[in-house]
Amino acid sequence: MATLITLLTDFGAADSYVGEVKGVLLSRVHGVVLVDITHEVPPGVVRAGQYILSRVWHRFPQGSVHLAVVDPGVGTERRALAAQAAGHFFVAPDNGLLSFLPADAHFVALPVPAEAAPTFHARDVFAPAAGQLALGAALTHLGQSITDPYLSPLPSPHHDGAAVVGEVIYVDRFGTLISNIAGADVEPGARLTVAGTEIGTLARTFGDVARGQLVALVGSGGTVEIAVRDGSAARLLGVGVGAEVRA
Amino acid sequence: MATLITLLTDFGAADSYVGEVKGVLLSRVHGVVLVDITHEVPPGVVRAGQYILSRVWHRFPQGSVHLAVVDPGVGTERRALAAQAAGHFFVAPDNGLLSFLPADAHFVALPVPAEAAPTFHARDVFAPAAGQLALGAALTHLGQSITDPYLSPLPSPHHDGAAVVGEVIYVDRFGTLISNIAGADVEPGARLTVAGTEIGTLARTFGDVARGQLVALVGSGGTVEIAVRDGSAARLLGVGVGAEVRA
Amino acid sequence: MATLITLLTDFGAADSYVGEVKGVLLSRVHGVVLVDITHEVPPGVVRAGQYILSRVWHRFPQGSVHLAVVDPGVGTERRALAAQAAGHFFVAPDNGLLSFLPADAHFVALPVPAEAAPTFHARDVFAPAAGQLALGAALTHLGQSITDPYLSPLPSPHHDGAAVVGEVIYVDRFGTLISNIAGADVEPGARLTVAGTEIGTLARTFGDVARGQLVALVGSGGTVEIAVRDGSAARLLGVGVGAEVRA
Repeated sequence: MATLITLLTDFGAADSYVGEVKGVLLSRVHGVVLVDITHEVPPGVVRAGQYILSRVWHRFPQGSVHLAVVDPGVGTERRALAAQAAGHFFVAPDNGLLSFLPADAHFVALPVPAEAAPTFHARDVFAPAAGQLALGAALTHLGQSITDPYLSPLPSPHHDGAAVVGEVIYVDRFGTLISNIAGADVEPGARLTVAGTEIGTLARTFGDVARGQLVALVGSGGTVEIAVRDGSAARLLGVGVGAEVRA
Repeated sequence: MATLITLLTDFGAADSYVGEVKGVLLSRVHGVVLVDITHEVPPGVVRAGQYILSRVWHRFPQGSVHLAVVDPGVGTERRALAAQAAGHFFVAPDNGLLSFLPADAHFVALPVPAEAAPTFHARDVFAPAAGQLALGAALTHLGQSITDPYLSPLPSPHHDGAAVVGEVIYVDRFGTLISNIAGADVEPGARLTVAGTEIGTLARTFGDVARGQLVALVGSGGTVEIAVRDGSAARLLGVGVGAEVRA
Repeated sequence: MATLITLLTDFGAADSYVGEVKGVLLSRVHGVVLVDITHEVPPGVVRAGQYILSRVWHRFPQGSVHLAVVDPGVGTERRALAAQAAGHFFVAPDNGLLSFLPADAHFVALPVPAEAAPTFHARDVFAPAAGQLALGAALTHLGQSITDPYLSPLPSPHHDGAAVVGEVIYVDRFGTLISNIAGADVEPGARLTVAGTEIGTLARTFGDVARGQLVALVGSGGTVEIAVRDGSAARLLGVGVGAEVRA
């Protein structure tokens, strides 16, 4: 099977940047298959990129290389990383983007060549490293092992008496509010609230309520979500990332 | 040739959903080629997805698998379908999205595994089915044959005396109003109107009128379109899907 | 290696057009690899497409075919072109989109078949030509050689005493103003202004200034850019393409 490289960035689809990165990869690795995860991470929002990549990477076959660049500190002293975990490879800036990796992940710091454009490490540092991994290079061939990557995991819920208290960690295109409360942690019959608005007990899918109505359910990522059937919960409730969710 | 799977959804390009589906497909079918048709169908607008797919599928080689998911009823009693027609394969919810298929299309109902996320059949039901078809499984291997798929064809024009009366069925990114009136059904010299505004007779291309002017022509899909040269007919006329077009 | 065809258009990602073009290419060239550069060139803005393609094409391997369609004059007398330069192939309308090619580029005019839709040469003229090139056809097999392609190069800076005076030629998704002044042409210590606002001397990267501050630097394309760290220079300064930049 051809090696896969997935791409996740905040570059948008309109400019030359994604094309330049793809050209570098395809010039260096004959036959590599490139897969866009997304290039629409909001500019500089590392946590959104972290959430998306945490949901996606393990769906790909082992041996895949995941190139992830949301990098507001590009060209500064922040390190450039490559990592290996569960048979997958990752290349990303050292800013928390890979905080979802399992504890036994192995990290190396990538050297930054003097000729790399200080504002475009995706093209000049990360893509060449991803290409080397796709060609079969060992992780330790790419750089010095490190044990202190910058980790900034997404927030975890806590208990408040019988209630689980979490928060919205992502809002998707449909305006669905995705929380960090695992479905398994919600007591049967518990009534959910988001930012103080009561939603009711957990339903199964959007169609369980009337059009335009709020619904709470365990989403496809395994955590509690608040949606509006054929509408946007974010807009209806006027809330977003960080809003409190109680179950 | 590697098998092709095309993807059409309303998931947008920003979230994890398209990436999760692609990961499932690439994990199950080594060497499959994935082709994005679009992920920007307006959320839940089955007819827009139907129109786009009806224009695109036959451009691909026989044996291609078309995975189409615009699915506001996900997780409800609506069936999940796979179909075969004209040497192509289709996987989609049973909500009218495939209404453009020829009358001799063969449909099967896909079983929905208990572990499928009720809000993400694209990943857990449709992608695995598309993967099986790409691997060469017979359609009837995937599910029970059915003869009553839900069909909701796009509206057809009718005659009103000598005039053909149709409507706008799609508006594209340029603001061009695409009608359901076949170019061949317009009498030579007929004057076109849209929502009561007279446009004139059929021209050949946008450049046949001055910049900013309205123009009617037979578009690349074979039906009458109303455009503004270097502008947007939808914005200029303030109309959209459903507006009456007379020729 | 499979042949690569890159795609750059102003078709957007929402409609059927990109899918129709991809279907034509994949039906004609078994095993071809399609790479989206962008489909988000602003409608009809040939210069934006020209800038993006000029940055990207040489990153791809020799033998690649670059299909570029920003074509407000589609279906008129403007010619359809294919070109060869530096071991790469190009297919585009004759409207200046390829003005960045080196002076020794070889151009041919493509015949336009009578059955081509007058509003969709990308599908009916340019994609078939790109497919022939990907299959190995010689450029001169596709059409008559021409020596007078329409050229409309991006503007060049000039000198005003000791100062270099250029302009903004592109604004990217981050709101960064990209000028046509080569970094090498800026005197050490020169103070930059954009549309009369002083920015200061050249920095190295965004992180060299505080959040929300303006910064001038030599960007990844080799020319002077004006950015706002974690913000948008275009919005802060209220300027865009054509604004004067002095160094």
